[in-house]
Amino acid sequence: MYAVILAGGVGTRLWPRSRESTPKQFTDITGSGRTMIQATVARLKGLVSPKDTYVITGRRYAGLCSMQVDGLPEANVLVEPKGRNTAPAIALACAHLRRRDPEEVVAVLPADHLIQDSAGFQRALRQAERCAREGFLVVLGIEPTKAHTGYGYIQRKDGPLPLAGDLPSFSVSRFLEKPDQVTAEQFLADGRYYWNGGIFVSRVERLLGEYERQMPDLYDGMNRIADALGTGEQENVLAEVWPTMPDISIDYGLMEDAKKVAVVPMQVGWNDLGSWDALESVVAQDAAGNYPVEGEILPMNSRGNIVAADKRLVALIDVDDLIVIDAGDALLIGKKESIQQVKQVVAELQAADRNELL
Amino acid sequence: MYAVILAGGVGTRLWPRSRESTPKQFTDITGSGRTMIQATVARLKGLVSPKDTYVITGRRYAGLCSMQVDGLPEANVLVEPKGRNTAPAIALACAHLRRRDPEEVVAVLPADHLIQDSAGFQRALRQAERCAREGFLVVLGIEPTKAHTGYGYIQRKDGPLPLAGDLPSFSVSRFLEKPDQVTAEQFLADGRYYWNGGIFVSRVERLLGEYERQMPDLYDGMNRIADALGTGEQENVLAEVWPTMPDISIDYGLMEDAKKVAVVPMQVGWNDLGSWDALESVVAQDAAGNYPVEGEILPMNSRGNIVAADKRLVALIDVDDLIVIDAGDALLIGKKESIQQVKQVVAELQAADRNELL
Repeated sequence: MYAVILAGGVGTRLWPRSRESTPKQFTDITGSGRTMIQATVARLKGLVSPKDTYVITGRRYAGLCSMQVDGLPEANVLVEPKGRNTAPAIALACAHLRRRDPEEVVAVLPADHLIQDSAGFQRALRQAERCAREGFLVVLGIEPTKAHTGYGYIQRKDGPLPLAGDLPSFSVSRFLEKPDQVTAEQFLADGRYYWNGGIFVSRVERLLGEYERQMPDLYDGMNRIADALGTGEQENVLAEVWPTMPDISIDYGLMEDAKKVAVVPMQVGWNDLGSWDALESVVAQDAAGNYPVEGEILPMNSRGNIVAADKRLVALIDVDDLIVIDAGDALLIGKKESIQQVKQVVAELQAADRNELL
Repeated sequence: MYAVILAGGVGTRLWPRSRESTPKQFTDITGSGRTMIQATVARLKGLVSPKDTYVITGRRYAGLCSMQVDGLPEANVLVEPKGRNTAPAIALACAHLRRRDPEEVVAVLPADHLIQDSAGFQRALRQAERCAREGFLVVLGIEPTKAHTGYGYIQRKDGPLPLAGDLPSFSVSRFLEKPDQVTAEQFLADGRYYWNGGIFVSRVERLLGEYERQMPDLYDGMNRIADALGTGEQENVLAEVWPTMPDISIDYGLMEDAKKVAVVPMQVGWNDLGSWDALESVVAQDAAGNYPVEGEILPMNSRGNIVAADKRLVALIDVDDLIVIDAGDALLIGKKESIQQVKQVVAELQAADRNELL
């Protein structure tokens, strides 16, 4: 099985740790000792070897990918000429993989998600691989733990597919955009809805077929790129074709109307770490009721605070539900419920050309 | 005129900037570019030369005093064998000064107070010197700006003393301990009460006379020390006598019952920086309503926060009235109204033997 890891994002919602120079996926957000992309690769151990692993990223992050991922061949770092959505990025990977073995299965994974139960994830991925070998386009479905309105959902059909393996898989009825609260609660109660975490598994040629059918222009572009690979024209063709590719997600551009789509449900402590308050679900609460991500907390009458401060003591006096993120040249202190305003902080820094802090 | 600067305190209420290794007076609490003892000495410029300036401190801080105070002769750093209150500390200084010129005037000043109006302070100190030359034991009286219950007060008599000079001085009726709120409000309304900031001015022999009369044991001890100064016995005598000296403040042990005590009122932006919330009166509020002591604040819907974070940006989201003090290995974040709990933080660190953080 191949793996294609999507590592082109910037992740401004995790400022000040996620920076333009080192986005989220190249940092150790949870204090685990590994960057997120390193954890993503480690999670595939035994299923996909580094030489079969590809990373898609922007030009300025190619070096970080090589440096952080042990054993990754330099040729497996695929550089997007310009940041684009997932449909063209995955097409670029497919252009490379079809030259190796289009019959083989590829797993597409974001570089910046957290999965706490690696063994459970591997079981689900194995099951997805099995489905894919049977010709399905497979998505891993994350069992929802609350009525979240920030994710897309996947609705499955009733009965499991008649496939071998120790986990059930289901045909997908449809992909759904982010729901409102009421709808999200219905989804949660129903039991046949999963969060779409953007992890897809398929034979390479199945994906190619869907591109050809649903996004013929993008497919043509990909063919031009594939034909130029390894020739002196490779960079020129890429630079020429890339801007013509539609800036569309694979969910929207390909999965929603794909045929024979299956979902393998999993309950593996998945978290997309979409904003700092997500750490509350990831980091164990200490005896005093705070969440020490990094560093040490000394609390006085203080509860519910999420604190990441490398190698230092943070004394808290009479404060609740704060998020404290130390990043050396910048320190973020915010009320948990308002932490989405980090985006405005970043916007203000951008407007003021404070590039050193972005 | 001589100056005796009291620099033996530890100042745990300003943790984490004030440390056992570098107490408050050796740090730049307000981001002024000068440590507090440096500012104290600079404030005397033109009135007292460095060679007439003495600093009393603990053994471990002697080096800091020499290093921080330009031009201070090493012999003018007077080391207390063990931290004691102000009465024995000042007696130790007097033992040295009586050998130089007991007729001369000495000003005794804490090393860790802030005075914003240096010119005003110099005028008051000159007036106090004049009074002292007339035989008065003089205290500088700080015009109260609110009904503070944390300071001792000085009550003056009604009419000014018939002395030359451009500032009035008054006889003192009595020294008062920290009042309750109601009493403090009466003091403020009355107009004849001043805060006692611990700044005293007197001829050396006048102080010696009061010691002799009111604290004869301490006076005897001081004489033994004075006799041994410059001999091979100096250290031995000091080590022997010092532990016998009473651990009493000069206010309580000497000033309260002294004769011919005068007060010179002053309104000079005095602040003892007794706790972090004091910075609110010292640092200018910025346009957004916060108090940037050090570093830069980027506030989102956040007001009334006091922030000292050297060379870094502090982004605040939806937080009010916090105190944020960054000290490298430790970060303090506390509600302004509860910031006196810093003492408990320090006590917990002491109990846990976290000496590296004390």
